[in-house]
Amino acid sequence: MSHENPPSRKVSCGLDFVTALDIRQSLAYTAENKYDFALMPIAHPRYKREFLLGKAMNRKEPFTRSDLLLQSSDWSTMIVGKISPYIDVDSEDAIYRRQSEEALAQEMTYASHLNLCAMIVPLTSINQTNLARTIFSKVVGVFSYQIWVRVPLESPFAQALELRKDVANKEDLLRAKEHNPWEWWNVFRSICNYDRRLGVALEVTPDIPSAEEITRWLGEPVRCLLLPTSLFLTNKKGYPVLSRAHQLLCRKFVPLGVQVVITGSVVHGSVQYYQQYVDHLWQSVRLNDPLVGFARGYEDFLQCPLQPLMDNLESQTYEVFEKDPVKYSEYQSAMEKAIRDRVPEDQAEKKTITAMVVGAGRGPLVRALLSAAEKANRKVKVYAVEKNPNAIVTLLAHKEETWHDRVTVVSCDMRLWDAPEKADILVSELLGSFGDNELSPECLDGAQKFLCDDGISIPSQYTSFICPIQSSKLYNEVRLSKEHDKHPLKHFETPYVVHQQNKLELSDTQALFQFDHPNKDVPIDNSRFKTLQFKIRQNGVLHGFSGYFETILYQDVMLSINPATHSPGMFSWFPIFFPIKEPLHLKEGDVLEVNFWRLNNSKNVWYEWCITKPVPGPVHNPNGRSYTIGL
Amino acid sequence: MSHENPPSRKVSCGLDFVTALDIRQSLAYTAENKYDFALMPIAHPRYKREFLLGKAMNRKEPFTRSDLLLQSSDWSTMIVGKISPYIDVDSEDAIYRRQSEEALAQEMTYASHLNLCAMIVPLTSINQTNLARTIFSKVVGVFSYQIWVRVPLESPFAQALELRKDVANKEDLLRAKEHNPWEWWNVFRSICNYDRRLGVALEVTPDIPSAEEITRWLGEPVRCLLLPTSLFLTNKKGYPVLSRAHQLLCRKFVPLGVQVVITGSVVHGSVQYYQQYVDHLWQSVRLNDPLVGFARGYEDFLQCPLQPLMDNLESQTYEVFEKDPVKYSEYQSAMEKAIRDRVPEDQAEKKTITAMVVGAGRGPLVRALLSAAEKANRKVKVYAVEKNPNAIVTLLAHKEETWHDRVTVVSCDMRLWDAPEKADILVSELLGSFGDNELSPECLDGAQKFLCDDGISIPSQYTSFICPIQSSKLYNEVRLSKEHDKHPLKHFETPYVVHQQNKLELSDTQALFQFDHPNKDVPIDNSRFKTLQFKIRQNGVLHGFSGYFETILYQDVMLSINPATHSPGMFSWFPIFFPIKEPLHLKEGDVLEVNFWRLNNSKNVWYEWCITKPVPGPVHNPNGRSYTIGL
Repeated sequence: MSHENPPSRKVSCGLDFVTALDIRQSLAYTAENKYDFALMPIAHPRYKREFLLGKAMNRKEPFTRSDLLLQSSDWSTMIVGKISPYIDVDSEDAIYRRQSEEALAQEMTYASHLNLCAMIVPLTSINQTNLARTIFSKVVGVFSYQIWVRVPLESPFAQALELRKDVANKEDLLRAKEHNPWEWWNVFRSICNYDRRLGVALEVTPDIPSAEEITRWLGEPVRCLLLPTSLFLTNKKGYPVLSRAHQLLCRKFVPLGVQVVITGSVVHGSVQYYQQYVDHLWQSVRLNDPLVGFARGYEDFLQCPLQPLMDNLESQTYEVFEKDPVKYSEYQSAMEKAIRDRVPEDQAEKKTITAMVVGAGRGPLVRALLSAAEKANRKVKVYAVEKNPNAIVTLLAHKEETWHDRVTVVSCDMRLWDAPEKADILVSELLGSFGDNELSPECLDGAQKFLCDDGISIPSQYTSFICPIQSSKLYNEVRLSKEHDKHPLKHFETPYVVHQQNKLELSDTQALFQFDHPNKDVPIDNSRFKTLQFKIRQNGVLHGFSGYFETILYQDVMLSINPATHSPGMFSWFPIFFPIKEPLHLKEGDVLEVNFWRLNNSKNVWYEWCITKPVPGPVHNPNGRSYTIGL
Repeated sequence: MSHENPPSRKVSCGLDFVTALDIRQSLAYTAENKYDFALMPIAHPRYKREFLLGKAMNRKEPFTRSDLLLQSSDWSTMIVGKISPYIDVDSEDAIYRRQSEEALAQEMTYASHLNLCAMIVPLTSINQTNLARTIFSKVVGVFSYQIWVRVPLESPFAQALELRKDVANKEDLLRAKEHNPWEWWNVFRSICNYDRRLGVALEVTPDIPSAEEITRWLGEPVRCLLLPTSLFLTNKKGYPVLSRAHQLLCRKFVPLGVQVVITGSVVHGSVQYYQQYVDHLWQSVRLNDPLVGFARGYEDFLQCPLQPLMDNLESQTYEVFEKDPVKYSEYQSAMEKAIRDRVPEDQAEKKTITAMVVGAGRGPLVRALLSAAEKANRKVKVYAVEKNPNAIVTLLAHKEETWHDRVTVVSCDMRLWDAPEKADILVSELLGSFGDNELSPECLDGAQKFLCDDGISIPSQYTSFICPIQSSKLYNEVRLSKEHDKHPLKHFETPYVVHQQNKLELSDTQALFQFDHPNKDVPIDNSRFKTLQFKIRQNGVLHGFSGYFETILYQDVMLSINPATHSPGMFSWFPIFFPIKEPLHLKEGDVLEVNFWRLNNSKNVWYEWCITKPVPGPVHNPNGRSYTIGL
């Protein structure tokens, strides 16, 4: 998969019009210059409007151009509407405010009439509560278009406010917050209850903020980058190009699938050159990670974790996972080391190792085991234990064709199997995205009764990890995954397997629960309770926790989906995501304390989680009321 | 009403047993000494239990006494269960923790088997996350009993930590928080999602904390006060009495209907004396406010605000409100002043005043108007305008019997009436608990067209007020008022009229919206938008806003339900309550910023509200989606 030519993306590029006196002409100009869409004011600038008082109040004339000027498909695919620049619904002047409210309502209603796909609304300060309310009330109503909230990457005042955080006092910090565009957006979208129809139109500024600041935007629903023509340099041939720093910046947003809008007057010959440059820049971003190729289309898509103990996997599922280029080669190398350790070189001829693959599926681990023994030059007798009768068919076919006497196929649940002998090596692949979440501990505890006292379990250890994250994208995915007959909050008490793209890590990842095999504890207890504290890196909003695992297969052979140690190229596991019911605003330096439980009864295993600092919140999934894993 | 003997309350008193070797005997002792119930350990102290390891694990013997020892009605009405004192599910020692979990589960299950009405669970620190989770998981499950969380009024360490807040540093404040029992409770009940089955058993300590601290407890669901016998002094006759300070403290909790439990060894002759003293103390608390008598049974009971424009009031509703001892006498005194101002003494014989009562109901304001004119010795001609055809019947009966030609009864909506002449004085009583919430502004704007240019409106002005409050009681009432066919969050977007008892004000009350009549504005605009900032007095949890109004009837004659200026004895209005969807933890000194809108369209008026500081939250009731007032 990594040898194929990695995919690249075609950019969708728009052009910003300050005014469009003749909308047909403007749109023709847009298309001629290879742009995909145009930003245009809804209201015609020549048509004066007054709503409360004044002569224009009773004008009979239309307030803007007719919808007949364009075909409806052009309105709905080519035009993003802009509100009139003088609208200020947060004005201190009550009359001005009311006039603005009426003007805004009129324009938003007309945009709906035209069936535009989006409206762009500029944000210029942290105090735009009434704007947020007004927009939200339209979004809650019948209007179905997207709202692009336009904010600059860096406030015009940011440089003047540059602070050394260690010496800044409380008022300095407050002032810095008021001039931080992300904070503007954060207040705005909070008032709008994180509505998924809200997106960010990020205006790239000459000054580029800190890497932290940019990373934070990568966790937001950024719909488009606005590139002012003034940002472009001129290359030797006279064409517009971005500085290296701005190129790097733009490339970071490519994986989010953002659109681009060129704004400002043409200063490089033709407006077409900007589009050509942007298209070129986008094409140059190769998406190299094989995981990205494998995961294409799965970005931020919620899946319920597999329950292989309860349900039998399908052939297709086996097939996908058997293709992992990394996982089975690591297993094979762990097995080879274990086999060599188990039988010294000089006894290679005399002793036959007994190895059992519990949960053999369609046989990839059996195959790896036989190859490992071959490489180590040791004799091995393999039991392939599998509870899925459909997979047994495949195993028996392999035995018939290839494995013959070397492998005994056992159609049985490993927890119930009465093994005829004890094993030297017990091999399994029962790990889920969170390590223990497919009940590997319970299964292996059951299976270890037929492992020799000094036998080896592969894997020998696994650890789950969590990291607090911000992602209004995932928050909305969870919120929208309602089912008719279930309580709407149930979905916030369920973990999801999800390829997490549009998110921000708020702190460092930390280890949570660890399990070792064989498990010599008396009594064996697979319940867990752990409290972790995370230091928050920067102001943000907590939407939940990403979960990962690392496993030691044998000695130094490891597999990991923890980003810090991720096995390169391995795609068998997406991370897990534990949501929280209510977004929690956090400040830089806050200590976030979270408690995780792994609990069980005779039928089920489940997790519960609960935040206790900086403010205490409710236990999620008490008694496994919303989600359990069946034994 | 205020002349009757005010009500007093009989206290329900319990007795705490450290052990109860013979439960029948203990219960007989309880009853003989006039106690209503007893606190007893669930597990029998002689029966050792081990769950994970140890010899006692496989004991065949029962772990406690049999349910047959008492009748089931005694178990369910006379016994509050206590968990074993050694249980510590938050122990650092994993084995001890697991043992404790098993012991706790066993005792809680047995308490459910016995159908006890409550279990008491002691809290001794802020770090009892696992205890909270465990209790909550039982409460979420099948167990239906109450949980009384036992906390001391003041931590044993409080004195040593006494801080001067102005010089304390951050760590000092954190430490003080960790040793504040209210903070223990706050974390515990937050983890338990404010479950209404959780209550507080407050152990009165020798030292009494600050008035603020006690006020905060009055906003919590305190179910009982625990009084240690060591708290009692001995009077001259040898009987136990409480100090004056402790008496005052206890009396504050009487209106909440708390129970009392006597705990500790008998040091004043007989255990009966404590019960007698407490009973005496409770009897001595007279509930003097006539509002309390009127409101009895309505404490914290949510009512939807009346919609008199949409619905016709019933006879009984008119009757209740006509009985207000204050409202109509204030109206009469305002009218008398207005009448005197309108016609100078020397023209009393010549001029007849035209007065209109709009929304006359069954006629109390007509009656007051006639009396006022008589007292002022002026001639008055009255129009009684009423839209409810049922009330017209009453008005016509009054006219026939008493009023005769002085009053013209008009069966018409005041907004539609075509008056035959203009009025000198326009009288109305259209105010709701929040002033404008029964649409007085819209009605009077419609009616003022038949008021003389220099005519007088009674009322001439009204102002709404809000105050941020903590009340898990009201939060739960709102949460539980679900309707099957409606979204569960709808109830958090509706204001309620409610006699608010179990609540705490987190800051000072502030004025919100003001309306003046007659309204000379062009154009008239009854929409409002206001942002208020509240400085928070002490750590607490915001559950919503209490709303009140003040009105100037005429000149210096006022009516008010704002607690700071409440018209003594007036009972016509309970306050209004605006909930918020998610409890918000606030710290002393925080600035809470809230935005309120009064909005309208051609059919409806509604409020929206939204918190923007210290953290921004969603707009409540956008577009009036959950609650409107019909025009």
